[in-house]
Amino acid sequence: MRVAGAAAALALAPFALAPMPALADGLIDNVNGMTIGRDGQIERFTGLVIGKDGRVVSLLKARDKRPERPDFRHDGQGRTLIPGLIDAHGHVMELGFKAIQLDLTEARSLDEAKAMIAAYAAANSDRAWIIGTGWNQEKWGLGRFPTNADLDQAVSDRPVWLVRVDGHAGWANSAAMKAAGVTADTKAPAGGRIEAGVFVDAARELIERAIPAPLPRERDLALSKAQGILIANGVTAVADMGSTTDDWNVFRRAGDAGVLKVRIISYSAGIDPLLAVAGAGPTPWLYDDRLRMVGMKLYADGALGSRGAWLKAPYADDHHQTGLGLLSDAKLRNLMVRAAMDGFQVATHAIGDRANDQVLGAIEELSETFKGDRRWRIEHAQIVDPGDLPRFARHGIIASMQPVHQTSDRLMAEARLGTARLQGAYAWESMRRQGTPIAFGSDMPVEHPNPFAGLAAAISREDADGEPLGGWQPQERVSREAALAGFTTGAAYAGFAEDRIGRLAPGYRADFLILDTDPLQSTMAELRATRVLETWIGGERVHAVK
Amino acid sequence: MRVAGAAAALALAPFALAPMPALADGLIDNVNGMTIGRDGQIERFTGLVIGKDGRVVSLLKARDKRPERPDFRHDGQGRTLIPGLIDAHGHVMELGFKAIQLDLTEARSLDEAKAMIAAYAAANSDRAWIIGTGWNQEKWGLGRFPTNADLDQAVSDRPVWLVRVDGHAGWANSAAMKAAGVTADTKAPAGGRIEAGVFVDAARELIERAIPAPLPRERDLALSKAQGILIANGVTAVADMGSTTDDWNVFRRAGDAGVLKVRIISYSAGIDPLLAVAGAGPTPWLYDDRLRMVGMKLYADGALGSRGAWLKAPYADDHHQTGLGLLSDAKLRNLMVRAAMDGFQVATHAIGDRANDQVLGAIEELSETFKGDRRWRIEHAQIVDPGDLPRFARHGIIASMQPVHQTSDRLMAEARLGTARLQGAYAWESMRRQGTPIAFGSDMPVEHPNPFAGLAAAISREDADGEPLGGWQPQERVSREAALAGFTTGAAYAGFAEDRIGRLAPGYRADFLILDTDPLQSTMAELRATRVLETWIGGERVHAVK
Repeated sequence: MRVAGAAAALALAPFALAPMPALADGLIDNVNGMTIGRDGQIERFTGLVIGKDGRVVSLLKARDKRPERPDFRHDGQGRTLIPGLIDAHGHVMELGFKAIQLDLTEARSLDEAKAMIAAYAAANSDRAWIIGTGWNQEKWGLGRFPTNADLDQAVSDRPVWLVRVDGHAGWANSAAMKAAGVTADTKAPAGGRIEAGVFVDAARELIERAIPAPLPRERDLALSKAQGILIANGVTAVADMGSTTDDWNVFRRAGDAGVLKVRIISYSAGIDPLLAVAGAGPTPWLYDDRLRMVGMKLYADGALGSRGAWLKAPYADDHHQTGLGLLSDAKLRNLMVRAAMDGFQVATHAIGDRANDQVLGAIEELSETFKGDRRWRIEHAQIVDPGDLPRFARHGIIASMQPVHQTSDRLMAEARLGTARLQGAYAWESMRRQGTPIAFGSDMPVEHPNPFAGLAAAISREDADGEPLGGWQPQERVSREAALAGFTTGAAYAGFAEDRIGRLAPGYRADFLILDTDPLQSTMAELRATRVLETWIGGERVHAVK
Repeated sequence: MRVAGAAAALALAPFALAPMPALADGLIDNVNGMTIGRDGQIERFTGLVIGKDGRVVSLLKARDKRPERPDFRHDGQGRTLIPGLIDAHGHVMELGFKAIQLDLTEARSLDEAKAMIAAYAAANSDRAWIIGTGWNQEKWGLGRFPTNADLDQAVSDRPVWLVRVDGHAGWANSAAMKAAGVTADTKAPAGGRIEAGVFVDAARELIERAIPAPLPRERDLALSKAQGILIANGVTAVADMGSTTDDWNVFRRAGDAGVLKVRIISYSAGIDPLLAVAGAGPTPWLYDDRLRMVGMKLYADGALGSRGAWLKAPYADDHHQTGLGLLSDAKLRNLMVRAAMDGFQVATHAIGDRANDQVLGAIEELSETFKGDRRWRIEHAQIVDPGDLPRFARHGIIASMQPVHQTSDRLMAEARLGTARLQGAYAWESMRRQGTPIAFGSDMPVEHPNPFAGLAAAISREDADGEPLGGWQPQERVSREAALAGFTTGAAYAGFAEDRIGRLAPGYRADFLILDTDPLQSTMAELRATRVLETWIGGERVHAVK
């Protein structure tokens, strides 16, 4: 049988020339199967027949006859089987790089942190720089920032650079300062501050510009790690929002070597990689539908936390600011035209209501010229003027949203926006009811890639602790079916992939999960704690827990 | 039958998603077939059986039984059939770009040139700049350089930039000067001169820096043109000497679209594209052995014509110069180590005897560390100190040489080197007799890619006019068999491809040519004039003349 096993899936790095296991006709039987059907309703089945080509042959009801002699038969033991989940907005390589860096989140004292740093350095003797994140001196009872001298005690033979949990400061050892040419005389740039090895805000760049680019094998390892994490979490396809040419080359190396399992729908980081890689039109689907560059990612504004989101009216907690648009109207249109004229899809990040308004306006104008099935995407579509909400559906603009952002950010959103402006914030159900195509994702690694947390947030608008009970702005909760659609058929449609993934139906790729939880029946706590027992991609089992 | 036809091969641009024709079992019969056998001797056959996978099934002698019912049977009408020729040193994209630029070589007057320029501009209305080459005012009876005002009369709506036949000057129109910010006040840089629209030597850069990078579709078109030219000339595989990341992306787009026919063995332009593209080791063979990045190209020196070749003793025609080494010993070794440590092959350009000595020394030193089958290549190996010749064979270093360079450059070589130093110049037979692995190529587009001109030069050391009769330094002529091996088995070996191409034998790719000339029997004039009647790659006919 074609069961590759979790060990094989996780042992992908460094990419070796591993042959794909021989495919076979198979039957997954005795399951509580569900998929979104062609009519948008839940379709149920108890058996799934897979062909040698890794595609679905048929769904079987309890009463249907089973194939007589499949090459293999897999007993689902009555467990729940759903289509592989699709993350419509993530950052694959960043997820992988974060996974191979040192994580100091759990360090409870400076001494514990130093021990973790030293152990990591010893285990990674081939890394020229030790890079890490997650430290928080507030938890250490230290009463001060740590210093480069503290860090030298852990590692002195190589540069070390550790970013604080909030991302606003970095902690360097003396070797890193030396490598960066920083001395006692170095002055912090405007907007930055230096305190004995800790570089705050704009001063971070003094060290970061000296960090060497990752080696090819580090990039390959990062992809392998990211893939392992995604597969273990039940994500079988992801829209990579901002692929560089280097990222693309890593994806291709994995594809060429036959070790790319997760499907990557790639949106280039701006126009340059799009033209360099894809050229005069989207690439074909490569590696049996595992990779395609379909379009371009742009940024219209920043984020709410740093007050970079571009608002129509000033921030409630800072009346002097409305955030910042990153592209002029003309520049935004020029970039969109450049991509659209060659048939590329455009996905534009817009968080604030002014940014959403700007992008909606550009799309409305361009829709006059670029007819046909364009599927303009707005990424996040987080704070939308209620009066602008109908503009999405009117042009079939895809709202690509990340449910967990709502539960993570609600208190900040209230502070930034005040209560009056919350009506169009994370307005999933309003969008859906108006006919806006919805795609759900995680924005990993900004949030954890676990899509079951996303499903629970979409359904309940309660956070991981069940707060607030009944949900925040509960009128914007979506049904269980709509949540599942957002992570399956909706996410597939958003990536021009709805003809091959996102559903289980004859001819579709056999991407599916076997779960210990039924997402249409479970409590929210159960849903968030769902265990992905098996992940199958293209008819091959790429993850299993015992 | 699987005959795709010349039209299909030439109609590749712009790359469309064309399915490969269905492959079939076939018999090419009634041919005067020849290939280099496993023993290095000529092996003869009259029939060739091809499998559905595009590989050779068997060679048949006249007395051998033919397959009874092949899917197709192709009558060779007694013509000569040889393996597809491999160009061991060429520049694929440059060949293509040259082919899509305006060629003014045939213009016999300024008025003729202007008419050709205007016609080309009209036919290429989508090109932002008109780029051309080949003009020579000496042929025009003009008594002066042409001017920007002359050129404005042909094209004034867009920038035009035309490089003189010798490459040492460029002719701009007023729009090009304006686009480049050049005014009447602009001073020529040191080493350059400006004369009313003509920019000599170092002054060329004033205009050239303003020329936009090619659009993706122009790059795709250039590859398509290059492929068409190569296939029509009987070249079925080529070592691309210095692929940029952009070049690689073009090759991949063609491969992904199924329109890459010619086989490209890619050597990166220095270390950066090597690490970006191939990463931690050579890529696999892609697209049924049509593309692989196997290693890196370096430059140890320049060329003889410009006295950039690095010599041990001063130039005979300029006693103050010995040319120039482009890399220090340390830098050369560092780059070679960086590539070799990840298993990459290294191909280093060395023209002068001092440059060859430097590269030989580096290889000798590195061979202590990097054992195994490394196949270090020296590109051109043009002027070698006779005392250094044995160093090639001693370390199995491949001499990758271009026979037509000898016939083109012999008078210049005599002038530059004097007669005393010619003993190790283009020393093909000396190299071969000492056991040096030889690979032959064209250096296209510096020379025409026609490999039959290369075969004739290798065998005769006479130029296209048969001069000098009996050959220049005739002791370095090679046998017909050795010449053929240089363009087949030798070139395949030089690219780590001898297990799949370069010969016709069971399991090898069915790459072959049908010719109107027998290269083992013909006169040199006949050999140079050989017509490639059909070119087959991987069992598919990709070129045919009626």
